[in-house]
Amino acid sequence: MGSIGTQNASVDEVDVLIIGAGPAGLMMANWLSRLSIRTRIVDKRGTKIFNGQADGLQCRTLEIFDSFDFAHRVWRESNHMLEICLWNPPSDMDPEKPSVVRSDRIPDTIPDISRFQQVVLHQGRIERFFLDSIKENSIRTSCNGKGAEGEIHVEHGVLPTSFAFDETKAEDADAYPIEVRVRHLTDEESKPAQKATSANGTAVQDGIFRSNLAADDTAELIKRSGALDAKAGREETIRAKYMLGADGAHSWVRQQLGFSLQGDSTDYIWGVLDIIPITDFPDIRMRCAIHSASSGSVMVIPRENKLVRLYIQLTTTNSEGGAKLDRSQITPETIIASAQRIMRPYTITYKYLDWWTAYQIGRGSAIPSHYENGMNVSMQDAYNLGWKIAGCVKKRWSRDVLKTYQSERRRIAQDLIDFDHRFSRLFSGRPAKDVMDEEGISPAVFKEAFVKGNMFASGIAVDYGASLIVAKSGDSAEQGDGTKVMLADQASRVVSKQEFATEIKVGMRMPSFKVLNQADARPWHLQELLKSNGTWRVIVFPGDIRRPELKQKLNGLGQKLAESKSFLHRYTPAQEGFDSVIELLAVHAAPRHEVTIFDFPEVFRHFDSNNGHDYNKIYVDDESYHEGTAHAYEKYGVDPSVGAAVILRPDQYVSWVGAMDDFESLQKFFAGFMLEASAEVQNSEQRAHELAMEVHGATGNGVTDAVAKGGDNVVAVRQADTVVNGAL
Amino acid sequence: MGSIGTQNASVDEVDVLIIGAGPAGLMMANWLSRLSIRTRIVDKRGTKIFNGQADGLQCRTLEIFDSFDFAHRVWRESNHMLEICLWNPPSDMDPEKPSVVRSDRIPDTIPDISRFQQVVLHQGRIERFFLDSIKENSIRTSCNGKGAEGEIHVEHGVLPTSFAFDETKAEDADAYPIEVRVRHLTDEESKPAQKATSANGTAVQDGIFRSNLAADDTAELIKRSGALDAKAGREETIRAKYMLGADGAHSWVRQQLGFSLQGDSTDYIWGVLDIIPITDFPDIRMRCAIHSASSGSVMVIPRENKLVRLYIQLTTTNSEGGAKLDRSQITPETIIASAQRIMRPYTITYKYLDWWTAYQIGRGSAIPSHYENGMNVSMQDAYNLGWKIAGCVKKRWSRDVLKTYQSERRRIAQDLIDFDHRFSRLFSGRPAKDVMDEEGISPAVFKEAFVKGNMFASGIAVDYGASLIVAKSGDSAEQGDGTKVMLADQASRVVSKQEFATEIKVGMRMPSFKVLNQADARPWHLQELLKSNGTWRVIVFPGDIRRPELKQKLNGLGQKLAESKSFLHRYTPAQEGFDSVIELLAVHAAPRHEVTIFDFPEVFRHFDSNNGHDYNKIYVDDESYHEGTAHAYEKYGVDPSVGAAVILRPDQYVSWVGAMDDFESLQKFFAGFMLEASAEVQNSEQRAHELAMEVHGATGNGVTDAVAKGGDNVVAVRQADTVVNGAL
Repeated sequence: MGSIGTQNASVDEVDVLIIGAGPAGLMMANWLSRLSIRTRIVDKRGTKIFNGQADGLQCRTLEIFDSFDFAHRVWRESNHMLEICLWNPPSDMDPEKPSVVRSDRIPDTIPDISRFQQVVLHQGRIERFFLDSIKENSIRTSCNGKGAEGEIHVEHGVLPTSFAFDETKAEDADAYPIEVRVRHLTDEESKPAQKATSANGTAVQDGIFRSNLAADDTAELIKRSGALDAKAGREETIRAKYMLGADGAHSWVRQQLGFSLQGDSTDYIWGVLDIIPITDFPDIRMRCAIHSASSGSVMVIPRENKLVRLYIQLTTTNSEGGAKLDRSQITPETIIASAQRIMRPYTITYKYLDWWTAYQIGRGSAIPSHYENGMNVSMQDAYNLGWKIAGCVKKRWSRDVLKTYQSERRRIAQDLIDFDHRFSRLFSGRPAKDVMDEEGISPAVFKEAFVKGNMFASGIAVDYGASLIVAKSGDSAEQGDGTKVMLADQASRVVSKQEFATEIKVGMRMPSFKVLNQADARPWHLQELLKSNGTWRVIVFPGDIRRPELKQKLNGLGQKLAESKSFLHRYTPAQEGFDSVIELLAVHAAPRHEVTIFDFPEVFRHFDSNNGHDYNKIYVDDESYHEGTAHAYEKYGVDPSVGAAVILRPDQYVSWVGAMDDFESLQKFFAGFMLEASAEVQNSEQRAHELAMEVHGATGNGVTDAVAKGGDNVVAVRQADTVVNGAL
Repeated sequence: MGSIGTQNASVDEVDVLIIGAGPAGLMMANWLSRLSIRTRIVDKRGTKIFNGQADGLQCRTLEIFDSFDFAHRVWRESNHMLEICLWNPPSDMDPEKPSVVRSDRIPDTIPDISRFQQVVLHQGRIERFFLDSIKENSIRTSCNGKGAEGEIHVEHGVLPTSFAFDETKAEDADAYPIEVRVRHLTDEESKPAQKATSANGTAVQDGIFRSNLAADDTAELIKRSGALDAKAGREETIRAKYMLGADGAHSWVRQQLGFSLQGDSTDYIWGVLDIIPITDFPDIRMRCAIHSASSGSVMVIPRENKLVRLYIQLTTTNSEGGAKLDRSQITPETIIASAQRIMRPYTITYKYLDWWTAYQIGRGSAIPSHYENGMNVSMQDAYNLGWKIAGCVKKRWSRDVLKTYQSERRRIAQDLIDFDHRFSRLFSGRPAKDVMDEEGISPAVFKEAFVKGNMFASGIAVDYGASLIVAKSGDSAEQGDGTKVMLADQASRVVSKQEFATEIKVGMRMPSFKVLNQADARPWHLQELLKSNGTWRVIVFPGDIRRPELKQKLNGLGQKLAESKSFLHRYTPAQEGFDSVIELLAVHAAPRHEVTIFDFPEVFRHFDSNNGHDYNKIYVDDESYHEGTAHAYEKYGVDPSVGAAVILRPDQYVSWVGAMDDFESLQKFFAGFMLEASAEVQNSEQRAHELAMEVHGATGNGVTDAVAKGGDNVVAVRQADTVVNGAL
């Protein structure tokens, strides 16, 4: 799709405009490229980043990457962190001989919470995987997005200069109420301010004072594209149905919306070194928290290749909180000297320095936890929002679904801030000298915080509150951020019966255990079946279908599902695949050898006159030849003599749990927000809009605070009264 | 490296010339690209193949692919076969109602023999992965191979027209005794004969009578490159130190060497259909062997996507063995009709036909087993040979090592033929009616053959005989193909003490179990540490090094290894990495938490003044956080209170097993064939040549037979008296 000539040659219309091509913006573009949404993504930077910026990737982030088919690339290239080692002063320490000893070890990722474990990989590679995925998706879907070849591609060196929102078009689903003017920058303009120094013959990136309030402006090692100048100075108008701000803490989008950000006063200074260490410290390839008695703390994060990131508490702390320090005070040499004091009696030095910086941060906010979580949370924000917007653009569901973005993600942001505060007090504090030392932090308390923090940091603990797409009991406002996200009509509310599947928690992501394909006996992690392709899923657990009463229920359900008025059909456009909007899967508990797919109603093994049966919808919880038995029913808390059914959102979160044959609840749930795929689309949309909820602007303290903490963040804009603003 | 202007502009000199770019040729090119050997690879075909030619990939082939870092691509794209279902007439069959029932199920891959299981993927994708790997390797190693960009790339549409071997240069390691003249073909000339028919609107590849004697000449769906004509008619002379013939059963290379091939007479006809089946047969996604009472047999091979390959015994068999059938007699329709008769009462048909063919094959040779093994064996031939040639080119070891190619691989070829014969008798025969029916094949006998065949078909059972690089007791000629491959000097012979590691069998490939990196606790399959990079490896199993006597032995060994006269140093050129020729690894059995890498002598954790210690050489057999405990010592048959040491070849085969501190045997073993990396290289080579063995030409019946069976095959040529000829 080229430029639209409605007014002049420099006006383009797209469904979604994304501002910012960091991990959050790329996550969004990736979603939209999968779902064939007309999208443009612009970034003021001249190119993607290429090194530095190493980040821990949460288990949940890897699960999401896997749903987009590139987790294996991260898994292969990243450094896997398996163990956290806690180092503290020995209890019998001679005060004249400062030293640290290993006081404890804990697993870096809590066993069994995910099929992935936390890994570290630099952001440049993650951006690469997104870019490759976007390209593949664009080719595969023949997407009518922007670009000479019909592809979505990141437009670098493009700066938004003005923003207008036409409120008169806000309620028109086919209108483009958003208008953004952009200017193409020169190569020079699009290069972030940076200063290259040199150590040991290697160009070194000096990112000094890259505080968390200026993330996008501080230095990264940028490879200059050199190709921007040809377009430089060109101006263009882009009209969009939706706009995403994923342009960081100094967000231009936020400024346009009038959200102001405040930073905390600063009083701690931390240095960061990415080095190839030369050391006799035995745990340099482990994640370590090293607390010296009086010289401060070091966090060790082993990276890919031979690199290690050290977060080092600087003893040159300026006593006047908030005052700017003279940058000449802090150098890689002063930072490593601090590490050397803290890590005594071990020695540590380096010849190769990859990147360094120093932070002045707010009281009660620790860099390490922030750093590992910020990118993950912002990508997960975009992951939460992408499918919702795509469904609105395609008129598959009501725009009310969008409001759940705010209610779900602002809560996560607040949790992250709380975690940051708690954790940083412990990390920056002085270790207790003995049990009588009440001001110091005892190793036991610190370890407990680490263990608890690990669950939070995995991203697996996220639990979304009740809404029109999470059929949970209780008060939705209390469970979220206060936004009203329930159907106005209480009689339409569907509530789960959690007891049918006690470990498939409504509001949380679907846990993954191995099941076997009935037709070919291949084991799959259940999550591998839940690719991010925009479809909702109903998974029926019919139990041991050798039991006549269960077989009868299964057949009865099959009959209802097959009817044309069933939710399985009424929301699916005739020209699209039978499973393109809602996919039906089954996991049964009879022995694999005693049944075949033909024991299931045809709706579970869709027949196509050209391609025969679909062999990829029916699975079984049974022993595999090479990978043991997962005992999926047991782990999901489903009784094989009773069964269960669940609804999963396109992002793998659990919407509903109930009886295996509760067709009525399934039908009612989808009727709450889905739009009919028929001539009555307009009427249905109208009906859905009648159920519309009041929406609160995102101006609470929580979000301001969160934004202040966040690096990247995602803001979704559609119209004045439905600003959907997810924090972080 | 461009053309050499020694005589005229059209003469080029390379270390290795490869004729044929099928899987075997590509395997060789891939090896050589990794090892920076100047290589050209030419193929008379205009392009790689793009569909059809689906092949099962053996466990061992996947292990090899993993050693080249692309097994994961195969694993993701291929169809995984988990179960073999055997179908036979029911014992109480009504003769008026022909039918088959599932009589048994067996695992497709024997559990626990490998970390991979057999999968199916079409050859075009496998060629793609090789081509990508060769490109990556060429870039990474800055290889001085052929190509405008210094890369090794396949030169398509290039036909060798003459061959000359200069015997006067045969003993000069720096000479190019082989001279081959090649002609660049037109696009039309380079397109194999093929005939496209049409069914259901889809272009269909008709490969009828693609017998196993004419594999390369029969049809494949070729995408025409259209770019060859510009060079067409150009002639060129290529001089090489070594030449590889990987140009199939009608090998031009073999013709040049005077090896003639004879085919068997033919009397069975099988049809092959690649279709998307429309069927109610419940096991269509399993590998099935279906024997009807009197209508013949069907083999089902489920493929990637929705495709299934059917091998169908045609009941239109011509009674006169060997006579050519009129091709109009066999069509996809007649083939599927046979399948329908055999598979009654189940129905099977198709609308999409991807490819089909029919074979007239020799008595006692079954297509299915041949098909699944031919490509694997030819790739494994090339895998066996590649590192040996590279080491000779680099003057790392004596050319005597090359002779082991013939002794090792011809034995495998004979085994394959024997297997083919046995298996096909069973598969083509009629099922026994009852226990009194002695002419029929009983289901129990057939099942037993399948189970035994599975071990053979995995590629894991390969067991190379004693040679100068396999320190095994016994008669090397008897264990191989008769070739003399031992050192002439019996006093130099080293013999393993298998009892130190009872399950690390000398002559077989190193089994793989998980061990943890001591420095970061990450679990690795041991084979993942054995990448194909041309290095030999010594793995020391020092046992539980908390035991003082073991710690003392370890330290003693470390001291000897560190000396400059140690095998670890004397064969390694000063300008190359310390572990580039022989890599030292350790797997200990003390609890991971009770030791660190600093409990090991420095030679196990090489220190570099720029990059610090090497953290990737010391592993431990201990419990992992997320993947259980592998019990590697137990599975390797190593006593943790005794320890062991092993030598592995660059292809992961076990050369030697002995005591953990038996430095003298290690030293002696390598002295048998390694060349000193010093000024005395010439002298050492001389010494090695004094030990040279007699070499037999490869003209035995075994090899002729094998070639007649084989599709691809590999022939290595160096000089008249050292023709190294591996069969298949």
